[in-house]
Amino acid sequence: MPGGAVSRATAALDRIEASDRPEIWISLRTRADLLAEAAAIDAKVAGGDVLPLAGRLLAVKDNIDVRGLPTTAGAPSFAYKPTADATAVARLRAAGALVVGKTNLDQFATGLVGTRSPYGAVRNAWDPDRISGGSSSGSAVAVALGLVDLALGTDTAGSGRVPAALNGIVGVKPSRGLVPVTGVVPACYTLDCVTVFARDLGSARAAAELMAGPDPSDPLSRTLPADAPLPPVPRVAVPTGEHLDGLAPGWAAAFAAVVERLASAGVEIVQTDISPLLDAARLLYEGAFVAERYAAVGSHLEANRDLVGTDLDPTVAEIVLGGASATAADWARDVALLARLGAAGREALTGCSALLTPTTTWHPTLAEVAADPVGANARLGRYTNFANLLDMASLAVPAGQVDGLPFGVMLTGAAGSDRTLAALGHTLLSPAVDLFVVGAHLSGMPLNHQLVEAGATLLRPVSTSADYRLFALDTVPAKPGLVRVGDHGTSGPGAGVRIEGELWRVPAAGFGTFVGGVPAPMVIGKVMLEDGSSVSGFLVEPIAVEKAADISAYGGWRRYRSEQGL
Amino acid sequence: MPGGAVSRATAALDRIEASDRPEIWISLRTRADLLAEAAAIDAKVAGGDVLPLAGRLLAVKDNIDVRGLPTTAGAPSFAYKPTADATAVARLRAAGALVVGKTNLDQFATGLVGTRSPYGAVRNAWDPDRISGGSSSGSAVAVALGLVDLALGTDTAGSGRVPAALNGIVGVKPSRGLVPVTGVVPACYTLDCVTVFARDLGSARAAAELMAGPDPSDPLSRTLPADAPLPPVPRVAVPTGEHLDGLAPGWAAAFAAVVERLASAGVEIVQTDISPLLDAARLLYEGAFVAERYAAVGSHLEANRDLVGTDLDPTVAEIVLGGASATAADWARDVALLARLGAAGREALTGCSALLTPTTTWHPTLAEVAADPVGANARLGRYTNFANLLDMASLAVPAGQVDGLPFGVMLTGAAGSDRTLAALGHTLLSPAVDLFVVGAHLSGMPLNHQLVEAGATLLRPVSTSADYRLFALDTVPAKPGLVRVGDHGTSGPGAGVRIEGELWRVPAAGFGTFVGGVPAPMVIGKVMLEDGSSVSGFLVEPIAVEKAADISAYGGWRRYRSEQGL
Repeated sequence: MPGGAVSRATAALDRIEASDRPEIWISLRTRADLLAEAAAIDAKVAGGDVLPLAGRLLAVKDNIDVRGLPTTAGAPSFAYKPTADATAVARLRAAGALVVGKTNLDQFATGLVGTRSPYGAVRNAWDPDRISGGSSSGSAVAVALGLVDLALGTDTAGSGRVPAALNGIVGVKPSRGLVPVTGVVPACYTLDCVTVFARDLGSARAAAELMAGPDPSDPLSRTLPADAPLPPVPRVAVPTGEHLDGLAPGWAAAFAAVVERLASAGVEIVQTDISPLLDAARLLYEGAFVAERYAAVGSHLEANRDLVGTDLDPTVAEIVLGGASATAADWARDVALLARLGAAGREALTGCSALLTPTTTWHPTLAEVAADPVGANARLGRYTNFANLLDMASLAVPAGQVDGLPFGVMLTGAAGSDRTLAALGHTLLSPAVDLFVVGAHLSGMPLNHQLVEAGATLLRPVSTSADYRLFALDTVPAKPGLVRVGDHGTSGPGAGVRIEGELWRVPAAGFGTFVGGVPAPMVIGKVMLEDGSSVSGFLVEPIAVEKAADISAYGGWRRYRSEQGL
Repeated sequence: MPGGAVSRATAALDRIEASDRPEIWISLRTRADLLAEAAAIDAKVAGGDVLPLAGRLLAVKDNIDVRGLPTTAGAPSFAYKPTADATAVARLRAAGALVVGKTNLDQFATGLVGTRSPYGAVRNAWDPDRISGGSSSGSAVAVALGLVDLALGTDTAGSGRVPAALNGIVGVKPSRGLVPVTGVVPACYTLDCVTVFARDLGSARAAAELMAGPDPSDPLSRTLPADAPLPPVPRVAVPTGEHLDGLAPGWAAAFAAVVERLASAGVEIVQTDISPLLDAARLLYEGAFVAERYAAVGSHLEANRDLVGTDLDPTVAEIVLGGASATAADWARDVALLARLGAAGREALTGCSALLTPTTTWHPTLAEVAADPVGANARLGRYTNFANLLDMASLAVPAGQVDGLPFGVMLTGAAGSDRTLAALGHTLLSPAVDLFVVGAHLSGMPLNHQLVEAGATLLRPVSTSADYRLFALDTVPAKPGLVRVGDHGTSGPGAGVRIEGELWRVPAAGFGTFVGGVPAPMVIGKVMLEDGSSVSGFLVEPIAVEKAADISAYGGWRRYRSEQGL
C-alpha cells in the first residue's frame, strides 16, 4: 500500500539507519515487529477505520512507558519492563501512530542540555558540535532530522521546549494535568507534563489534543474550561529590555524581529516587567522543590551510589541527592513565596493573551556544557522554568535562524490557554510580507484602504534602485505602471532611475487575499530597492505602457500628481 | 433610635458583662468607642444607606486583624498592633457590622479543643465542665450564648466547625480562597480559611457571601464558577457503618435520625466508603504538612522557648516545633499521596452533591482533654481534617441534642459547592413533620396523591390510642372524621377506641402548603398514638359529626369501606 503505514515505517527505519545518530535511541523496535503493526494499521484503514495518525511515526522519550520496550529514564540500572503503555502513548497508538523506539534523555529528565546520559550526549540536529538541548534530547533531534513525524517528551523545567528551540522544531507543553502522566517516571510529580514535538504546529497540537483527557489512574489529570476566543486585537506581553540581557549574539535582534512581525500581524505588544516570573523560575532548582526529584528517584540513587560516574550521571546525582536536605518548612516557605510571585505574575500579564519570550538564552557547544554542567544548564531555563511551577501552558515555535542555527520563541499563558497560544503561534509562523507600493496604494491615495483592511502597516517611504521607469496608465482610478529597465538602461532618456514609493508590511493571510484582488494590468512581482534588497511590489504588464506617458522624471507618483494639480 | 445599632450595641455589652465568661475575650472595645461607631452606623442608615449588617454585633477570633486592637493569636508574646482590618473584617464592617472584641482561641489556631490558651480554657456554652471546641473557641461560645450575632473564626483542621457543633450553632467554612486571608495569622498558609459562626444558617451564609471576593493582597484568593443547581432528587453520601464507630453514646442514633430526616425530605442517601478522605485527614498532623505551622510561627517559638508553659502552650509548642523535622522529600511524598487520596475521594463521592457526616465524634470534658491533650484532640478532627487538604467546602449545622448537649452534622462538598451545601443545610434544618392520616389520604385512597406531591413518605401503619371515635362524614370524596373522646369515655358504646391509620413524614415546606389546602370540616391537630406519642393528624370540626354515622366499631376507615363494599 504505497503511502500507507508499512511504506512509511520502512522509510523511517531506513532513515534512522542512514542517519548515523545512534545516541538518539535507547531502544528501537525490531523491523519485523514494527512492520507487523504497520500492516495491521493499513488493514484497519482499508477496512474503513478512521485513524487520524494512521502510520505516523512516533518516538517516545525513555521515561514514558511503551509496552514491550524497557523504560530506563536514562539509567540502565533503573530499567524496568512496563506491562502497559503510558496513557499518552496508548491514546496516540489508538489513533494509528506507530512507536519506532525510545529516545535518549537527560537522566531522570533532570537537565536542559541533552548531555547527561550514559547513553551518550545527543548531538544537535543542525550542528553536531552543539548540544541538542534536553532533557527530551533524542525525541527533539529525531523529529528535527525527519526520522519520525512526532515525538513525545516531558517537561518540568523546560524539557519539552528548550530542545525544540535548539533544533528548529515545535514543542507543545500542554497545561498541567490535561495529558495524563500515568506511565511516566516522575521528575517533579506535581509539575511534570507530557509534551509533543513536531516539525509543524498543527501536527503537534493535534497530537496534544488526542492525548488530552482525564484518566482515572492519574489523580492529577483534569479538564479545564474552554479558552475564551482571542480578542480582535490580541495583546501579547514581552519582557522589558533588562530581562532580555545576556542573550546569545544576534538573538536579541532576532527576538525584536519576531516582536515586530507579531505587531505587524495586528497584535498589540505590551512591554511587561516579568521579574515575578523569573524569580519564580529560580525556585525550581534553588528552592525546596528539588525534593520532589529526591522523592521520585532518590532511593535508587542512594542504593546505587557506586554507579555514579558510570551508569548514573554525576551531575544528575548531585542535583537529586541535594534534594534530600531541604526541610518541609523550607518547602512551605517556598510554596507561600511561589503563591505571591504567581499572583504578581498574573497581575503583570493582566489583559494579555500570552507572554512572548525567547525560548532559551543561548546555544552552547558540547564542550561548553562539559566545562560548566550546572551553570550552562541554568542559563538555558531562564524563560521556561516558571511555567509549570505557576501552572501555565506554553509552546515553543521556530522563529528563523541566527548564524545558521535555529532561533526559537515561546508563548506562555494561563492554565487552559492552550488553544489561544496555538492561535497566536500560527500567527507568528505565518510571516508577514513586505510590499512595495508605488501608486494608488500609497498613503492617502484611493486604494490605500485595501492595505489597511488586509492588516498592513506602513514601514517607511523607500525608493527603488536606479533601474526603473514609471508610466501614467489609463486606468480608473488613475495608476502608475512601474517597469524595470535596468538591464538595458544607460544614462540618457531611457535609462533606469529611482522611483519613490512606500514599503508596507502585510500579514501573510491578508496578503493572499490582497494579491487575489489585484486587477490587470497590474501585477505583483519583485522590486529591487535602493538598499539592494528585493521585496514584493507592484509592477505592470508591458502592454499597458506601450502608449502611456513616461513620468519617470517626476521621481514618483505623488510628485507627478501634485505637479499636475491632481 | 430603638432597635438601631446603638441600642443593639448597648444590649450586647450588657449581656457580655452579665455572662461571666471572661475567658471568651482576649480584648474588648471600650463602651465609648463601640457606641460612637454604632451611632455613626445609625446616622448612615437614617441617611438612607443600605447596610445589610447594620448594627449586627461581630466577634473576631484573635488571629484576625482588627485595627485598634492587638492581634495575639493566643500568645501575649506574639502580640502586634495591626494597622488595618483584615480584608474579611473590613468587608463586614463596610456592611454595617460592629466589632465588639477579639476572642480567645487555641494558640496559633492549633487545636480543636479550646483549652490551649494562656487566656484560659473556654468553657462550653451549654455545660461549663465541657470543652467549647476550638480553635475558634471564644467566637463560637460568644455566638452560642447570644452575646453577639456573628463571629469570625478560622479553619485549617476543623476550627470553624467543631466548636459550632459542640455549642449548637452554625459554622460555615467557605471554599479555600473565596474569603481572602489577608490580615490573618497563618496556621497552614495554603490551607487556612476564614469562617463564620451564627445561630442560623441564613445569617452565616449571608456573612460568608459578603466576605467573599478576590483581594489583590491575597495571592491565594480566587473566584470559583457558580455551582450547578441541586438536582430534583439530590444525592448525599453518608459513611458506611464502619466509619461511624467510636462515636459518643447516642450520637450514632442521632446521626441516623438526621439521615432518615434528609431521606424523608426527598434526598437520596448513598452509603459510601470514605476511607480515602479519612486517610487524607490523618496527613494533616501525622504528615509533613505540620511544617507549614513551623514555617508560620516556628521562629517565634524557637526564640521564646523559655515561655513554654506560661505564655506559650506546651502542646501547641510541641506540635509546631515538631514541624521542623519533616524533610521536603517527606512533603513531596505526602503531596503525591494526598493527590491519590483526593482522586479516590472524588471518585467515591461521584454523583453526590455532598457528604453528610457527624461534625465531630465526641464531646469531652475539660478534665478529659487535660488528661490526654493530643489524643482527645485527634478524635475531634476525624471528619473535619480532610476538607481543606482536599480543597472542599463545608458547613456545620446543629442537629438536635443528645443527653442535653448539642449534636451537630456537617455537609462537605467540592470546592465551589458552597451554595449547594447551604441549600442542603436548609433542607436539614427544616425538619419534616410526622402526620397521622385516617381517611381519604391513606395509601390507595383518593387524596393520597396530595401527600406524595408534598414530598411525603409513608413511615408505617399505626393506630391511635384508645381515646377516639370515627364517624362517616357527608363529604365528597367520602371522608371519616376522627374525634377524641378519651376525656369522658368509659367502656361502653360511647367510649374511646383505637382507630387504625398511617403515619406519614412530610417535608416541612410541603407540609405548610398541604395544611393550607385542607378544607372544612377537616382540621389538623395533635393525635395521640397507641405508643403514647403525639403527632400531627387529621381531626374534624364537631359540627360535622352531629348527624354522622359512628363507624368506630370497624376500627378504621379502610375496613369500613371494604365491608361496605365501597
